[in-house]
Amino acid sequence: MQFSLIATDTHSAARCGVLHTDHGSIPTPIFMPVGTRASIKSVPTNLLKGLDVHIILANTYHLYLKPGNDIVGKAGGVHRFMNWDGPLLTDSGGYQVYSLSDLRKITEEGVTFKSHLDGSKLQFTPENVVETQRIIGSDIMMPLDECPPSTAERSYVEKSGELTIRWAERARKHFTKISPLYGHKQYQFGITQGGVYEDLRAISSRALVDLDFNGYAVGGMAVGEPAETMYRILELSHTLLPEHKPRYLMGVGTPENILNAIERGIDMFDCVIPTREGRNGRVYTRYGTMNLRSAKFAEDFRPIDEGFDNEVCRSYSRAYIRHLLNVGEIFGLTLCTMQNISFFMWLTATARKEIQRGTFTSWKEQFLREFNSKPDR
Amino acid sequence: MQFSLIATDTHSAARCGVLHTDHGSIPTPIFMPVGTRASIKSVPTNLLKGLDVHIILANTYHLYLKPGNDIVGKAGGVHRFMNWDGPLLTDSGGYQVYSLSDLRKITEEGVTFKSHLDGSKLQFTPENVVETQRIIGSDIMMPLDECPPSTAERSYVEKSGELTIRWAERARKHFTKISPLYGHKQYQFGITQGGVYEDLRAISSRALVDLDFNGYAVGGMAVGEPAETMYRILELSHTLLPEHKPRYLMGVGTPENILNAIERGIDMFDCVIPTREGRNGRVYTRYGTMNLRSAKFAEDFRPIDEGFDNEVCRSYSRAYIRHLLNVGEIFGLTLCTMQNISFFMWLTATARKEIQRGTFTSWKEQFLREFNSKPDR
Repeated sequence: MQFSLIATDTHSAARCGVLHTDHGSIPTPIFMPVGTRASIKSVPTNLLKGLDVHIILANTYHLYLKPGNDIVGKAGGVHRFMNWDGPLLTDSGGYQVYSLSDLRKITEEGVTFKSHLDGSKLQFTPENVVETQRIIGSDIMMPLDECPPSTAERSYVEKSGELTIRWAERARKHFTKISPLYGHKQYQFGITQGGVYEDLRAISSRALVDLDFNGYAVGGMAVGEPAETMYRILELSHTLLPEHKPRYLMGVGTPENILNAIERGIDMFDCVIPTREGRNGRVYTRYGTMNLRSAKFAEDFRPIDEGFDNEVCRSYSRAYIRHLLNVGEIFGLTLCTMQNISFFMWLTATARKEIQRGTFTSWKEQFLREFNSKPDR
Repeated sequence: MQFSLIATDTHSAARCGVLHTDHGSIPTPIFMPVGTRASIKSVPTNLLKGLDVHIILANTYHLYLKPGNDIVGKAGGVHRFMNWDGPLLTDSGGYQVYSLSDLRKITEEGVTFKSHLDGSKLQFTPENVVETQRIIGSDIMMPLDECPPSTAERSYVEKSGELTIRWAERARKHFTKISPLYGHKQYQFGITQGGVYEDLRAISSRALVDLDFNGYAVGGMAVGEPAETMYRILELSHTLLPEHKPRYLMGVGTPENILNAIERGIDMFDCVIPTREGRNGRVYTRYGTMNLRSAKFAEDFRPIDEGFDNEVCRSYSRAYIRHLLNVGEIFGLTLCTMQNISFFMWLTATARKEIQRGTFTSWKEQFLREFNSKPDR
């Protein structure tokens, strides 16, 4: 996988680059909106590029349950199924097995679980998860891992981390044996584990690096540990992961988390925050967030973020969106989600520019000061 | 109001024309999608023109309740509020008072009713309904009328029709005294009543024509009477209404109703069918309707209507949309609604072409044969 590093920050570990896939090149740092079930919730797919979206994420667990590999395969993969011709990344489904399904049982072979939809008994193995993502046709696939909760004891995290390494070996081996189904190349990232324990993180990272994945995710973060702990692990990971491969912090996060992770050398992010909070009426601006359901916006005819250059801010007022949310019009959810996606795309794109200019750290401080200055105007 | 008649059918009363407004010209016959509360439900406003939408309808009753005249006025009217720069027609709110609100009481002065939202006591008069639509800024406004149910006795319809005439006089008088608020011209249509009684229809139509409205609606139809009765009234109305003014059949209807009304000289239509049924997963094609929620479409990778030239059919399969509906993704509702709006726009645009070619009647028969041939494939 070609990943070109374009600039690195002189004051921090921040870097910017370009990640090349057959569906297009991705400028990094980059935020990836989440399209769990082959749709970015409430946003028409053909509006995504207008929001500067470069790559989206879909969830293997959800797609495996519905519509299932058979239909996804007959559709010719998820790109064709959902009519998205840009890059697509899929997680392994492991995280959802742990967070959504019942009666999961982890063995050396893999994980058995009951579907949260109909209770049917299913199994994910390192090999079949590669197969499912081969059928999905994601440009970047992730291997099955175990993600222990932040409350797990060290002994559990250690054993779990060892299992994740053995699963990663099997996943990598299986990946090298298969060929893509739809004419475009697929890549595979590794996921490091080890919880909050630096020595375990080092063991996990070194083992994964030896397997020569196309990129690396820092997994098992943002699962309840303090942000400072996560930043410490990212600083360590920066020293352990190869410089010339992309680094992905899974499931993160708030604008502050994202910028602090970029500062520590992370290139890629995904999170449900912009889409989920958008559907609750909470919108992101350069000056903090606000909930447009509030009556205080009833006669506020300003755009969500004055001077912010996107379709939502150019065309619609807070009062209009508040009206739509107030009467239950779907378009209100769409507009809030569009604003948030656009904002998160702006955030990583601006970080990228500031890294190139050598002004990332000072910009970050200023941005966060303004962003935190007026919570819920 | 300038309404240019371009062609009339030699075999029927069908006609095509162009209706000019300050927000653009409208080819007729035309279907107007319904955006009750200043949004076409589930469809982003900026996608409407791509569906060949020329004019939309909004509901005075709903906008009067929420967000209310004060906010609509401060927004600078509904065009600016919702960011729609094409023509906009608003009904008078009368129909919704009769169908949605409680404890309505009709007097000479107007109608008092309780809001269906919060029970507050409100009054619509011929004058204040003009004022509300002046604040909304619709290009075409409708006067307050009473719309009796199809089960009403003749004596009631007669008295009601006389009241509607007196209200129309007051509405027209008030309209001529006011000036538009936002720099674009507003027009006012009359609404004929008289139920299914030809003599009462004639009295109503003649009185309304004397008031010299900018166009005429045939009101009180599609309220439960047989379609044949409606067609008979339309044939009569054709002889009573001025040739060189637009004619609007309110709240109609199915493709069959629309084509049969076009054949009888109607130029304009609005109906919630495409939007409401779209949100239920029912989509319109040239070969009938189908409900995409059905499992039989799970592996059907054809477009909704093969060869139908719109964004939905070019880009998405039945199987994908069925998946979205099946898992509850909002984008599924959006796609079904977009298909239906596009179909209804195609229907009236094609009728227009066929009228110009002189082949409307034979095309209509053939279309209806195909449309009715495969219900719910």
